[in-house]
Amino acid sequence: KKTAKVNFANRGMTLEEDLNMTNQYYLERDIAVIHKKPTPVQIVNVDYPRRSAAKITEAYFRKASTTDYNGLYRGHYIDFEAKETRSKTVLPLKNFHEHQVEHMKKVKSHGGICFVIIKFTTSGEIFLLDAEHLIKYWSEQKSGGEKSIPKAIIKGQGYPIPQGYMPRIDYLTIVDRVYL
Amino acid sequence: KKTAKVNFANRGMTLEEDLNMTNQYYLERDIAVIHKKPTPVQIVNVDYPRRSAAKITEAYFRKASTTDYNGLYRGHYIDFEAKETRSKTVLPLKNFHEHQVEHMKKVKSHGGICFVIIKFTTSGEIFLLDAEHLIKYWSEQKSGGEKSIPKAIIKGQGYPIPQGYMPRIDYLTIVDRVYL
Ligand SMILES: [Mg+2]
Ligand SMILES: [Mg+2]
Repeated sequence: KKTAKVNFANRGMTLEEDLNMTNQYYLERDIAVIHKKPTPVQIVNVDYPRRSAAKITEAYFRKASTTDYNGLYRGHYIDFEAKETRSKTVLPLKNFHEHQVEHMKKVKSHGGICFVIIKFTTSGEIFLLDAEHLIKYWSEQKSGGEKSIPKAIIKGQGYPIPQGYMPRIDYLTIVDRVYL
Repeated sequence: KKTAKVNFANRGMTLEEDLNMTNQYYLERDIAVIHKKPTPVQIVNVDYPRRSAAKITEAYFRKASTTDYNGLYRGHYIDFEAKETRSKTVLPLKNFHEHQVEHMKKVKSHGGICFVIIKFTTSGEIFLLDAEHLIKYWSEQKSGGEKSIPKAIIKGQGYPIPQGYMPRIDYLTIVDRVYL
């Protein structure tokens, strides 16, 4: 099926950069307090030169034990992971790891709002998908199920996120509609 | 006044290590989902050696724009900062920076639970103090007020946190009593 749509794919911004600017917008307008967590790094060696800033000279990337983003919106705990894929048809599950999915299960069971924001970079479309679908596909994969979530499921069970200039990826309008 | 108490000061664990183990305990018992955020680091240079892990060879510490810990407990957003001091009489405000205090204001105004966990390392005592007190002292300091929060205020307005083996710093019992 053919659709006419504005193509946001070629702006040269990554999903993460756009989400960071969106969260900055929410923060400045006092709409929500949501931040990206810093990249976890194992620091092995630090130099302390005189008169200048401490310099980390040896460090390694660690696997995150949680999702990338969390915070507070209208009194609710919000938690999500953001993923881009160049695939036109699926979101491969290899984009996630066990700890992240376990974390999302925990968040849901303790009463938090938890979802994935998925960008199909070829079309530029961005969707919000509740974590329950990822959790289901993840556990099915372990017993021989599919290795990816079909885009048709993401479109059918998820919600397209409105994109614009400010905010760029207005996911809280979807949160309002779906969770609150 | 003299008090007889167990002295936990010399166990050689920092407040942060004890809190991390406490949060691990809460997580494993399925009591709460609270994590320390990774130390924010500005990565400048990374080597990608063959057959081994990417190595960060130049990076710098960045100032955190939020507090150290956040998460979810009984459906509530929880956010706190942990501070140790060797002072016997005060918590110096220089242990905080503007961004952290602004973040705490935001959290409170959006309906989150926000506090400081303060350890007096000499006595080993640990207190939970609601963020409102820090916010008040911080803003008064700007107009010429005190440069620290007296321990008497922390004892009077805050709550001593029970310490033990498992969990080490059982701050959620205080959260139950004070906020929920
Ligand atoms: Mg991510
Ligand atoms: Mg700290």
